[in-house]
This record gives sequence, C-alpha cells and structure tokens, in this order.
Amino acid sequence: MSKGRLEAFSDGVFAIVIALLILDVRLPAGVHVSIAALEQVLPRIATFVLSFVVVGVYWVAHHNMLHFIERVDRSLLWLNLLLLLCVVFIPFPASFLGTDLRSPLAVRLYGVSLIATNAAGTLFWSYATLGARLTKPEVSREFAWRIVGIHSAPIAVYAAAVVVATIALALSLTLFALVPLFFIVPNRWLRRAVGP
Amino acid sequence: MSKGRLEAFSDGVFAIVIALLILDVRLPAGVHVSIAALEQVLPRIATFVLSFVVVGVYWVAHHNMLHFIERVDRSLLWLNLLLLLCVVFIPFPASFLGTDLRSPLAVRLYGVSLIATNAAGTLFWSYATLGARLTKPEVSREFAWRIVGIHSAPIAVYAAAVVVATIALALSLTLFALVPLFFIVPNRWLRRAVGP
Amino acid sequence: MSKGRLEAFSDGVFAIVIALLILDVRLPAGVHVSIAALEQVLPRIATFVLSFVVVGVYWVAHHNMLHFIERVDRSLLWLNLLLLLCVVFIPFPASFLGTDLRSPLAVRLYGVSLIATNAAGTLFWSYATLGARLTKPEVSREFAWRIVGIHSAPIAVYAAAVVVATIALALSLTLFALVPLFFIVPNRWLRRAVGP
Amino acid sequence: MSKGRLEAFSDGVFAIVIALLILDVRLPAGVHVSIAALEQVLPRIATFVLSFVVVGVYWVAHHNMLHFIERVDRSLLWLNLLLLLCVVFIPFPASFLGTDLRSPLAVRLYGVSLIATNAAGTLFWSYATLGARLTKPEVSREFAWRIVGIHSAPIAVYAAAVVVATIALALSLTLFALVPLFFIVPNRWLRRAVGP
Repeated sequence: MSKGRLEAFSDGVFAIVIALLILDVRLPAGVHVSIAALEQVLPRIATFVLSFVVVGVYWVAHHNMLHFIERVDRSLLWLNLLLLLCVVFIPFPASFLGTDLRSPLAVRLYGVSLIATNAAGTLFWSYATLGARLTKPEVSREFAWRIVGIHSAPIAVYAAAVVVATIALALSLTLFALVPLFFIVPNRWLRRAVGP
Repeated sequence: MSKGRLEAFSDGVFAIVIALLILDVRLPAGVHVSIAALEQVLPRIATFVLSFVVVGVYWVAHHNMLHFIERVDRSLLWLNLLLLLCVVFIPFPASFLGTDLRSPLAVRLYGVSLIATNAAGTLFWSYATLGARLTKPEVSREFAWRIVGIHSAPIAVYAAAVVVATIALALSLTLFALVPLFFIVPNRWLRRAVGP
Repeated sequence: MSKGRLEAFSDGVFAIVIALLILDVRLPAGVHVSIAALEQVLPRIATFVLSFVVVGVYWVAHHNMLHFIERVDRSLLWLNLLLLLCVVFIPFPASFLGTDLRSPLAVRLYGVSLIATNAAGTLFWSYATLGARLTKPEVSREFAWRIVGIHSAPIAVYAAAVVVATIALALSLTLFALVPLFFIVPNRWLRRAVGP
Repeated sequence: MSKGRLEAFSDGVFAIVIALLILDVRLPAGVHVSIAALEQVLPRIATFVLSFVVVGVYWVAHHNMLHFIERVDRSLLWLNLLLLLCVVFIPFPASFLGTDLRSPLAVRLYGVSLIATNAAGTLFWSYATLGARLTKPEVSREFAWRIVGIHSAPIAVYAAAVVVATIALALSLTLFALVPLFFIVPNRWLRRAVGP
C-alpha cells in the first residue's frame, strides 16, 4: 500500500462525509415552505455547520500527520481505517443532535463520537511515530510527543462537555465549537507547538 | 498542505455536491408513476438543473482561481473550507426552492446562499492575491482586482433577485439563471476580462 | 483547465452516480423483512443493475474519448458539464422506473434520458474532433466519424424502445439492456470499429 | 484504459460506498431523541460497523491485487466493474440486515451478497494472473493460485453462515465478523501466504 493511495482514499472519504452532512438539513416530508418551517430546520443547520468545521479540522489534522509519515505498513493501514470509521460515523450523532439540540443524551453521544475520533487519531499517530517506526528522519521524539498532546487534549474538553451536558447544555455546545476554533484562529499556543 | 491536495479535496467535494443534487428529485413515497406525478416533480427538476449549472460554474471559478495561486498557507486553507461550506450548503436552499418554486421565501434563501458563496469566493481570491501574497509572478495587481470584480458582481445581481422576489418572482429566477449563462455563453465582456 | 483535472472531476462524478444508484434499493419505511418485501424490491434491484451497467459503459466511453483528446478549451469544458448533467440525472428516471417497471411512461422517461446522454456525448466528441480542433495528431477524420456513429447509434435503439413502450414493454427493456451488452461482450463489429 | 485511472475510479467507488453506509443509521422520521430510540438504532450501528470493515477489507484486497497487475485490458475493465457492482450492492443487504438483525432471511441475503463479491474478486484475479496474462513478471504461478485460494476461501465460510442461519443465527453473524478479522489481525497463516 503506497502512502499516495492511502491519502487519496482518505481524502475521498473525508470529502464525502463533509458533503453528506447537508443531506440531514431537509424539510420533513409534506411540510410547506414557511418561516416557521425554516425555524424548525435551524438546529439542523447549526449542527451541520458545527460538524462541517469539526470534520474539516480532522481532515487538516489527518493531512498534517501524513506529511510527517514516510511509509505505510499493514497495521497503519488498519489504524487509518479505524480513524475513517470514526469520521464516517459522525453524521449519525450529528443527525441525532440536529433532531434535538437541547437533549443532553444527543450532546453526550456527539461528544463520545468526537472522543473516539480523537483517540483513533492519537493511536494512528502514536503507532507511526513513537519509536520512529514510519516517520521521516526530521521528526524528533519530542515533536512526536507534542503532536500526541495536541491530538489528545481535545478528548479532555469533549469529556468535560459530556459530563456537564445535563446541567449546562449551552456550555457543552460551546466547548464543541471552541476546539475547532482553537485550530482555525491563529494563536500563540498552536504556533509554538507546530510552527507557522 | 500542498496545493495539489487542496485541489483534489475540493474537486471531490464539488463532484459530490453536484451529484447529490439529484437525490432531491424523487417521487414522494407511495405516489404512483403518472404524468401528474411527473408534473409534481417538475419544479424539483428545474431547481436541479439550475443548481447543477450554478455549482458547475463555481467549480470552474475555483479551478481558475487556483490556476493563478502558487502556494497555499494555513489561512487560505480555512478560507477554502469556508467556500466549500457555502457550496455544500447549496443543496438545502435548492431543496427548499424545489419544494415550492413560487415561494418568495425560498427564492430569497436561495439568493442569500449564492451571495454567501460569491462573498466567500471573493474573500478567498482577495486574501491570496492582494499584496501578491500567494500568487504566481505573472498575476498583476490590475488582473487581481479585475477578478475581484468578476467574483463580486454576481452578488449585486443576486441581491436584486432577493429584493424583487416578493413582487416579481419570475424575474428573480431569471436573474439566478442569467449569472451562470453569462459565464458559459462566450461573450465580449468575459473575454476582455479574463482572456480567451 | 488541464485535461487531467477535467478527467479527475468527471471520474469523481461518475463514481458517485454509480454508487448513489443503490440508495434507491431500500425497503419502504416500516416494512418488515420478509420474502414478500424482498419481492417488492426486485424491480428496484433490476433497475439498479441495468443503470449501473449503463453508467459504467458511459464512464468507459468518456474515458475512451478523452484518450484521443489532447487539450481542453472553455467550450469543451461546458460540453463536458452538459454530459455530466445528463449522467447525474439518470438516477431519477432509474428511480421512476424502479417504482413501476411496467409503466410505459417510466420506460419512456428512462429512454429519453439515455437519448439525451448519448446526444451530449456525441456533441462532446464532435466538437473536439471534427476539424481536428482538440484531438491528438493520430486521430484521423475517418476515425472521428466512426466514433460519432458509435455514440449516436444507441440513440436509434433507445428511440425504438421509447416508441414501442406502450405496445411491447418487455421489448423496450430488452433494448435498454442490449446496448451496454453490445459494448461489453467482445464482438466483431466493435473490434472492427475501435480496435482490440 | 490506464491502470492508474482504473485504480482512481475504483478507489472513488469504494470511498463512497463506505461512507454511504452511515446514511442507513438514522432515527425513523418523527421519533424523539431518547435512550429507547438509540437502542432501536443499535442493530443498524452494528451492521454499519460490520459492513464498514467488510468493505474496507475488500478495498485493501482490491488494492493488493492491482499491485501485482501490470496492465489492464478491456475484459479486466468489465470484470472490475462486475466486482464494483457487487461492492456497490452491499449497502442494500446491509440495510436489510440492519432492519432486523434476527431475521434468517436478512442474514442469508447478506451472506449471498458477500459470496458474490468474493466470487467476482476471484474471477478478476484469475483472469489477470492465470496464464500470466496481465501480471508483473515477479508473480509466480504458485503465488497466483495461493491468492485464488485466499479470495475464494471466505466463500465457504459465508456459505456455512447462510446454511446455519435458520438454526444458529448468532453463529452466522460471528462467521461474517471472523473473515475480516482474519485479514486484519496479524497471524501466521496470512503471513505465510502473502508475506509481511
């Protein structure tokens, strides 16, 4: 398995998942076009935007990880499929959340799904880089660990969101949004960790 | 992030969106095949063709912009995702419009969605080219500004369509169709602005 | 627009259309799993297989045409999008036909849709090759015309299928299946026209 | 038809199928978010994970086969489309199985669908390699036959699953899961057959 085909296949899966998310933003069958109908769809639009950004950030992260990986072995291939399994799953908790944005259960399922994705990403990176198994020569042990930190830190944030969902739902949703924003908005911490 | 992978990923997203549009052209569940059923689907077919052409023109525009861009930085990456977010969103207003082609609300939502996409495209181009930040050497300041004009001009047309939707719905729909036609049918103005 | 990206984008669209066809093969909501339910889905499975093969043959034809084309201009780009529009549309008549395989109306819509696709393909090829506008040097005028014949001949077969749909529906469906079979099963006529 | 484009097109189809599987994991329309609703979806989630892994293994197998194939002829092209037809079909038996995980009929349909896919894969490989028709020089006759064995062995397992479905449903489902696990979990037999 060449690295190029793994990349192309993964890119295809990411592109499809990110586009499929809109299929959930639909009027229920038989509902007429009206402001009220549009308002009913608003939670689904909000969940769509959130999930689009979340999956977009995962795509960029996947891309950045592969940049430092030199070659692909059989195990990394399956770890990549595990990561893709988590990413492909996201439209379901997204749909669940879009059905009822005020349900702690939906918020918790969404959070658990993101935790699983970040854990799979961390596993993917750790397998490839710790022990310098499959990485390019320029990847230092210290850099590898720093990226482990960046991939696993959101797990703590999502876990907090899952825990507080019952008592402070708005806070949970805010935490979901803050993680991708941290990676998108240029900031000192990110620059220090991964360079410009 | 290499320019090649950004291109490939964006192409994938465009291809999926353009193909997903047909999923909305379906008989309602339990409806029998008949001329009447087909007539009921006609507004959805019309919206499908319009949206296919609109997204197709966005794809060509995206492609043309990237042709003049030499390298990709972190911010351009996110601006590209913002543009893709707008493109992926289009099937929803398209579905809304297909549900009721004579609803001013649906026409307005469709128009606003296209305005957002053109604004995101203009932002993408402006960031990359003004100040010659990421452009190839042959891109002159004057050419960059001309393309800003071409990307933002449709915003005015769509805004007009949004405004007149309540009083002249057919005119709004005609305006939606005229913009892609301007880019498809060979004409003097386009040739003068971007060459043959 | 480079030929490579046109190819990649078109391949993406073909791949998505061919895979989306299965979305129409589904049990109606609330129906229990049973032999009877499976029998109810049979017309949809038959339509799926037919349409998969039809779109597959279009993909191979598209690929073969591009093999002889050297460069892409703005008009060929739009003709390609016209061809893709016809291909992306096919899942709708396929769904219509799968709803009622014994409806002459559904058979006719399916036939008209395939006629439009072959006409668009013929147009695409004619524009590129007649006058040797965009073709590789080895493409002779005679070869170009032979391919025009191969792309337009199915139009006559599909037109016959449309005409006889009311009086001999099974014949119409057989004609739909015969066209792709002609291109798939190795035969003397095809070999003489396009080589081994 | 170059090998590269066949690969890219097939990768696209695999990526779409693997991502479409999640569309079947949805709450029924009008159902509220609750633990009970989530439990109702559990069989669909289980079927999704199983089918994701099954299709993932088919993708890797397809990839591995092409690695040893040097060139593509017209017949291999159609055999590849036959294989893709089987793969694209999988979401339907998956949806059938997800509707009722305890239905022997659904289990049998799923098994038959996988048998067809493995048979198509075996045919694809046999055509290309037996007689060394299209293979790279390093592919020995013995290696070619070994891969035939690896591709056709699961047929026996799936056939057993189909047979015992009525009397031991859980065993059938276990057999479905064991086949991909055999290819994923590193083991002596696989290593001996295809190398590390």
